[in-house]
Amino acid sequence: MADPWQECMDYAVILARKAGEIIREALKEEIAVMVKSSPADLVTVTDQKVENMIISSIKEKYPSHSFIGEESVAAGAGSTLTDNPTWIIDPIDGTTNFVHRFPFVAVSIGFVVNKKIEFGVVFSCVEDKMYTARKGKGAFCNGQKIHVSQLQDITKALIVTELGSSREPEVLKTVLSNMQRLLSIPIHGIRAVGTAAVNMCLVATGGADAYYEMGIHCWDMAGAGIIITEAGGVLLDISGGPFDLMSRRIIAANSQVLAERIAKELQIIPLQRDDAAN
Amino acid sequence: MADPWQECMDYAVILARKAGEIIREALKEEIAVMVKSSPADLVTVTDQKVENMIISSIKEKYPSHSFIGEESVAAGAGSTLTDNPTWIIDPIDGTTNFVHRFPFVAVSIGFVVNKKIEFGVVFSCVEDKMYTARKGKGAFCNGQKIHVSQLQDITKALIVTELGSSREPEVLKTVLSNMQRLLSIPIHGIRAVGTAAVNMCLVATGGADAYYEMGIHCWDMAGAGIIITEAGGVLLDISGGPFDLMSRRIIAANSQVLAERIAKELQIIPLQRDDAAN
Repeated sequence: MADPWQECMDYAVILARKAGEIIREALKEEIAVMVKSSPADLVTVTDQKVENMIISSIKEKYPSHSFIGEESVAAGAGSTLTDNPTWIIDPIDGTTNFVHRFPFVAVSIGFVVNKKIEFGVVFSCVEDKMYTARKGKGAFCNGQKIHVSQLQDITKALIVTELGSSREPEVLKTVLSNMQRLLSIPIHGIRAVGTAAVNMCLVATGGADAYYEMGIHCWDMAGAGIIITEAGGVLLDISGGPFDLMSRRIIAANSQVLAERIAKELQIIPLQRDDAAN
Repeated sequence: MADPWQECMDYAVILARKAGEIIREALKEEIAVMVKSSPADLVTVTDQKVENMIISSIKEKYPSHSFIGEESVAAGAGSTLTDNPTWIIDPIDGTTNFVHRFPFVAVSIGFVVNKKIEFGVVFSCVEDKMYTARKGKGAFCNGQKIHVSQLQDITKALIVTELGSSREPEVLKTVLSNMQRLLSIPIHGIRAVGTAAVNMCLVATGGADAYYEMGIHCWDMAGAGIIITEAGGVLLDISGGPFDLMSRRIIAANSQVLAERIAKELQIIPLQRDDAAN
C-alpha cells in the first residue's frame, strides 16, 4: 500500500524551504518587533507572513485538513487537537533569535493524524539544515540519516534547554533551580541555542544527549518530536510519564534511562495546557 | 611602513585551518576523554595534538617568540605575559562540545606584543567560519566585514554566557543568580553555545549584544577579544573597570553603555589569575 502521507510530507519540505527563503530575505532588512505574553515573547510581521503563506498553500491542496499555527492561535484560532489530519506549524521557532539575527531560526511543521505525529519537518534556515522524519522511516538531516547518542551515564550528559521567555520570579526561580540540580549531579554541561526545534534536532543528531523544557507549545514540539523518536530517541513528560503534545512540557532524550533520570531532578512549573481554553 | 605582524597573522590563519582539519577528522573517530579540574573540565588527545602542531610550526618560523597554550600550561608551562611577541593558543575552545560533537568547536589564536593584542584568529571549524581581526583594520568572518549590533537598551538585549565547568555549589549559585538578575531586568534572553570564542564572535557579528563570563582563561579570550573591539565593541572587566587578559573574567559588549549596565548586575566569583602561580 502506498504511504498515504508521503505526498503531504514532500509538500511540507517544499513549504519549509520556501518559508526559509522568506525568513532569510527578512533577515537582510530592518525587523519591527511586537511583544506578546512577556517582554521576552516577541513576534514580527515575518512570523505572520510565513504562517499565512504555509497555511494558505496547504488549504488550497488539502481543504479538509485542520491547522494549529502559532500566530493563528495568537490571533484567536482554537488549538484543540482532533482526529482529523492536522498541520501544526511554527513559522519561526526562535523569534527572539530572528529579531537579533542570532543564527538559529527554524520553520517547524508537524503533521498529526488521530492525535499521532505522522511526520515532522524542521528547517533551520540560517544553517541551511533540513531535518525530516516520517513515522517508521528514520530521521534525516539534509538527506543523511541521523541518530541519537548512545550515552546512558547522566554524569557525562550534555543537555540542551532554555531560560525561556517568562520573567515571573517564581517561574525563573524554578527554571534556574532545575539547571542547578542537573549541573550538581554533575553533568557535562547545558547549552541553549534559543529554539526548541533546533535544540531537539541537536539531540536527534547525537550532538546533545537530552532536551527538556516547560512553557513551550505544541507547535514547538510537533515537528521535532518525531525527528527525535525516528532518530532512536524518546519523548517523555516532565513528570516521567507519557509525553502529551498539548501539555506544554517535554523531555526529549536519547534513551528512556536518561529521560527518566532527568525527570527525577525536575521541579514542575504549573502551566495552562495548549487545549485548555477551548 | 609594512605591517610587522601581518605575516604572522597570515600564518595563524593557515595554522587555524590546518588545526580545524585535524579536529574535523577526529570528530569522525571515537573520542577518548580525560578529566582536568572538574568532572566537566575535559581534555582529549586531539587538544594536545593540535596545540603541539600549532606551537611547533610557529617555533620553527619564529624561534624568538613566546607561547601560552592551554595544554602546555596544563602540562606545567608558565603563563606569565611578557612584552615579547606571544602567541596565546586554545587548540580546541569547546572541548566538551567536541567530545559530544555539539557543532561549535573553535581554534583560537591571539597574538600579543607589549601585552597588547595585535591580531586574533578564531576558526569555528564545524561551521567553517574563519573570524579574523588585525588591530586597526577591522574584523572579518570568512573575509566579510562584521560589526557589533547598535542596541543600547538592556531590556532588549540578547546575551551570551555559559554555565561553566565548575560544579562547586557556591560558584554555581553565583553563576545562576547572575543570570536571574539579568533576566529580571528584563532582557530578551540568554544563549550558550559552549565556547567562549564563538560566543564572543557572535557578539562581533551583531547576533548577540554582549557576552560575559568568569573562570575562563587568557587563551579563551585573546583571539576573540580583538575581534570584538575591531568589530566596534568593547571589553571590560566584570567589575566595570579596564579589561585584563590574565584576570579570567570578561564582559565583551557592543558598547560601553551595555557593558557597564551588565557589570552593575554581576556578582563576582573569586578566581586565581592566569599569571598568579608563576
